[in-house]
Amino acid sequence: MTPPDGFRHHAEVRVRFAETDAQGVVYHSNFLIYCEVARVEYFRAMHGDSPWRNDRGYETVLAHAACDYRSPARFDERLLIWTRLAKVGTSSLTFEYKICKPDGTLVCDANTVQVAVDKQTRKPTPFPPELAARLRAFETS
Amino acid sequence: MTPPDGFRHHAEVRVRFAETDAQGVVYHSNFLIYCEVARVEYFRAMHGDSPWRNDRGYETVLAHAACDYRSPARFDERLLIWTRLAKVGTSSLTFEYKICKPDGTLVCDANTVQVAVDKQTRKPTPFPPELAARLRAFETS
Amino acid sequence: MTPPDGFRHHAEVRVRFAETDAQGVVYHSNFLIYCEVARVEYFRAMHGDSPWRNDRGYETVLAHAACDYRSPARFDERLLIWTRLAKVGTSSLTFEYKICKPDGTLVCDANTVQVAVDKQTRKPTPFPPELAARLRAFETS
Amino acid sequence: MTPPDGFRHHAEVRVRFAETDAQGVVYHSNFLIYCEVARVEYFRAMHGDSPWRNDRGYETVLAHAACDYRSPARFDERLLIWTRLAKVGTSSLTFEYKICKPDGTLVCDANTVQVAVDKQTRKPTPFPPELAARLRAFETS
Repeated sequence: MTPPDGFRHHAEVRVRFAETDAQGVVYHSNFLIYCEVARVEYFRAMHGDSPWRNDRGYETVLAHAACDYRSPARFDERLLIWTRLAKVGTSSLTFEYKICKPDGTLVCDANTVQVAVDKQTRKPTPFPPELAARLRAFETS
Repeated sequence: MTPPDGFRHHAEVRVRFAETDAQGVVYHSNFLIYCEVARVEYFRAMHGDSPWRNDRGYETVLAHAACDYRSPARFDERLLIWTRLAKVGTSSLTFEYKICKPDGTLVCDANTVQVAVDKQTRKPTPFPPELAARLRAFETS
Repeated sequence: MTPPDGFRHHAEVRVRFAETDAQGVVYHSNFLIYCEVARVEYFRAMHGDSPWRNDRGYETVLAHAACDYRSPARFDERLLIWTRLAKVGTSSLTFEYKICKPDGTLVCDANTVQVAVDKQTRKPTPFPPELAARLRAFETS
Repeated sequence: MTPPDGFRHHAEVRVRFAETDAQGVVYHSNFLIYCEVARVEYFRAMHGDSPWRNDRGYETVLAHAACDYRSPARFDERLLIWTRLAKVGTSSLTFEYKICKPDGTLVCDANTVQVAVDKQTRKPTPFPPELAARLRAFETS
């Protein structure tokens, strides 16, 4: 499919039977899991294969997540999770997602905000400037 | 705990080990499942014990869900999911939730919008007026 | 319901919509989660309210789990998870479960084996004798 | 990796963060979901791309599942789910699985039994002979 306007990166999942519910469609909370799969792949594409180093003094925690459900998805369907880094803040990253079927049908619009927190104090802490620069460059490269 | 301002109904869950993640806290998508547990209990409190009758021409689907994560919750903690029906639309219901620890610590603010759709056409369809009236009465009773 | 022969302890869950699948019944892997809920309640009943102390040199890991599915369970049904400690080994605990509806219908037979491992070496390590004695006494008390 | 002895088919998953637990490893019930992913891929490899036709008078339900947990798996690890059809019964299929890391480390041994049931009566019903023959031929081809 043609990427949605403004999106250049995507990951792909195939709906598992375990992810459906008794209405016959993907249970709604699972789309947040798909978004995380896509976020991980986004970082992998940027960093190479080992993006989760433990030699940092901070970790990121999710502060916000929202989904608008546009049309249902069913067992065994392939879904493309289009992903873009919409905002790089001092200590936060805002991602936007469009989850689509291969024919372009929009299934779900979502966004998440994650915040870097100091591992000891659990307070927000600025990203290293070189990481912020690298994220901005990757999104627009 | 004292109910949060404007909330009168709540359900309760205890965090399952399966719901935690490798950061040692409840994985974020599970809070949407807790909200659904609370929504079901809300309808049960209103209707009596069998609120899911199949003799209706419509069903409700989730159109929107959002969470703001305020502080983490851990394995075996009890959580109160305070729930209120913030808006009864023609064919939609907006619920708001405050998920709290027993000591009042706010863990998560959330809201959902569900829409009644015709079982055949899958188009939004108005709630029966008597149901809308009953929902408004229950929230303010 | 009358307890199944040989069982004296139980926990209870109500089936969440998130736990159903597109066949309209509880997705099979969720019964293992129900068993863990029951195991936690079993230890709580034995220990009092804080059974997961971190001042021990070992932790327990699951080594085996098996389920025989007898009849389906559906959204919003109440399930009783009857639980017994079938065997206290030197470093392992074997639990058996019968998951039933309130009318006695058997939904699932299950069993699990968990093993105490040293936190440092990850090798099996004997339970403290007083814990083994307490477990045996609790099951038969 | 070299296939485990007797196995010729496999599917692959990458561990999602949502699938880990507070012990830092894949939560045990998720291995049953990985087995189902592999079973679906097995049928797809045999049938071509649309193995779930609704024009049949029967469906299959899971009757048994068992896992032996050999070593833990962690976030973002790739896992190969080696799968073989160990037995084709009159109305049942027994699958065996070996879930391994790419270096050959065995993570989990599992097996499942599924049974064909008539959609109306919910009683076991024989597989069409041509399907049974095709399954046997695919496993040994």
